[in-house]
Amino acid sequence: MSSINSHQWLLIDRKVRFGDTDPAGVIHFHNLLRWSHEAWEQSLELYGLQPSDIFPCNKKVDDDQNIVLPIVHCEADFRRPIFIGDHLKVEIIPEKLDIGSFQVRTKFLCQDYCVALGLIRHLAIRENTRERCSLPKHIELWLEASSLNLGLRPV
Amino acid sequence: MSSINSHQWLLIDRKVRFGDTDPAGVIHFHNLLRWSHEAWEQSLELYGLQPSDIFPCNKKVDDDQNIVLPIVHCEADFRRPIFIGDHLKVEIIPEKLDIGSFQVRTKFLCQDYCVALGLIRHLAIRENTRERCSLPKHIELWLEASSLNLGLRPV
Amino acid sequence: MSSINSHQWLLIDRKVRFGDTDPAGVIHFHNLLRWSHEAWEQSLELYGLQPSDIFPCNKKVDDDQNIVLPIVHCEADFRRPIFIGDHLKVEIIPEKLDIGSFQVRTKFLCQDYCVALGLIRHLAIRENTRERCSLPKHIELWLEASSLNLGLRPV
Amino acid sequence: MSSINSHQWLLIDRKVRFGDTDPAGVIHFHNLLRWSHEAWEQSLELYGLQPSDIFPCNKKVDDDQNIVLPIVHCEADFRRPIFIGDHLKVEIIPEKLDIGSFQVRTKFLCQDYCVALGLIRHLAIRENTRERCSLPKHIELWLEASSLNLGLRPV
Repeated sequence: MSSINSHQWLLIDRKVRFGDTDPAGVIHFHNLLRWSHEAWEQSLELYGLQPSDIFPCNKKVDDDQNIVLPIVHCEADFRRPIFIGDHLKVEIIPEKLDIGSFQVRTKFLCQDYCVALGLIRHLAIRENTRERCSLPKHIELWLEASSLNLGLRPV
Repeated sequence: MSSINSHQWLLIDRKVRFGDTDPAGVIHFHNLLRWSHEAWEQSLELYGLQPSDIFPCNKKVDDDQNIVLPIVHCEADFRRPIFIGDHLKVEIIPEKLDIGSFQVRTKFLCQDYCVALGLIRHLAIRENTRERCSLPKHIELWLEASSLNLGLRPV
Repeated sequence: MSSINSHQWLLIDRKVRFGDTDPAGVIHFHNLLRWSHEAWEQSLELYGLQPSDIFPCNKKVDDDQNIVLPIVHCEADFRRPIFIGDHLKVEIIPEKLDIGSFQVRTKFLCQDYCVALGLIRHLAIRENTRERCSLPKHIELWLEASSLNLGLRPV
Repeated sequence: MSSINSHQWLLIDRKVRFGDTDPAGVIHFHNLLRWSHEAWEQSLELYGLQPSDIFPCNKKVDDDQNIVLPIVHCEADFRRPIFIGDHLKVEIIPEKLDIGSFQVRTKFLCQDYCVALGLIRHLAIRENTRERCSLPKHIELWLEASSLNLGLRPV
């Protein structure tokens, strides 16, 4: 686990690119949820986890204990138009829901205004049986460490 | 406006393609909302509207009356895994919310099971001032015609 | 194998959707290659093959003989702007290159004008060793059947 | 224009994310060209140009002199599989082709191996007439400055 300050792993930069936007000149809506997911991936990485710890990938040995974290719900709110070239700050707000699920809220800030909100909810299941199970230990630890941080920085 | 039966314009086919899925072997989540939007576009078209009636595009003459329909909220629920090659039926359920907003629910069926749900909420605003306004007449008519249909086919 | 006429499996319809385009009001360029791939998938399906015959997917039993078809090259040419709502015809032109590789050219027509061209080149490799091998039998047959058709319809 | 060293504006970092990959466990092919374009955008920005200088966007005043830079050709070569979590270095190699066109080559390196190559070719046209014209002055300057750099770093 890395020793960096918690603020760093829960605050991600994102630049809006030309291909993210549509003929209305603003972000094409579902890209926001792509950014939410990528910000989460970046957060895990800054915290010290590897993608192969979390995501199914062909480098991994199959075993009965493999846990995957499918998304069961996502949503987004758009409060102000997001333009090409906008420099966004993405605040990550993780939350454990129960023994086998958690969600990650994302708050998109542009020049200190909240321009959009994202939410992605995950469930832990065994890859082979697709039955619900407890969250993997490293996700538990990341959720705990992240919520400590949130105690100091209420949203 | 076309004379086709209402069932046709509110029921869209969708085939899951290789690039829609991720290393977990199921749909990469935010593509579902892309499908919801594309199913809505197809529905408008089957009903008899042209994309240039609805969407900002460079063929259109700019005028003060241009109304755009930005998305203010979207969400999706995933109930069962959606695999490559799955043949989905997408049921479109439009709903007027008030004088200046509406939402489109989408219900994704695979072999008669509901595998996922989508929802996209739009607001009408004037393109030049970005102030709220009434829905465009043709969207009003499409919403009315679609809700008549829903009376006969409760969900 | 289906009994439909060969013209049908090599000619695909494609409607340009709002999210396919960018603030220039025309297709965002790399989507064309997504369409090329999806047209190829649709062609295989119309011919009578299942996605699970061709693509790695989690429904498939792993065995030493699994062949995958990674893309080693792709390209696209854009001749005229492609706008939202355009109704394109996609002509599929498959070609065997050698014992272990093939390419699929795609010609995008809008109102009888060629507006764009795509090309995707695949190599056959064994999934476990990643060594080159011969094309799978069903791809061989699809290539043969498709080239017979092209004999009657020179491009 | 910024005073940073030329190496910085022509060398971009890219992390491969879960949603970039497909069920084969490697990058879904056309995303590479998205990365090429985004690396070019980032390069322009590091050099000191704003997106609104280059790309059509709704903040810009329309005038007869507006020049747009549509893509007329793109291609990509895939030499080694690119996996989720891979940390890529993207080298940008711009080249003026003639008075009204240029191309940007991108070389993707992973642990010092070249894993893929991209190429995107642009044409300068007047937005209103869609007739060919000379490259905009700021693109000329970026091309000149970038090629000076390349003299010192042959590929």
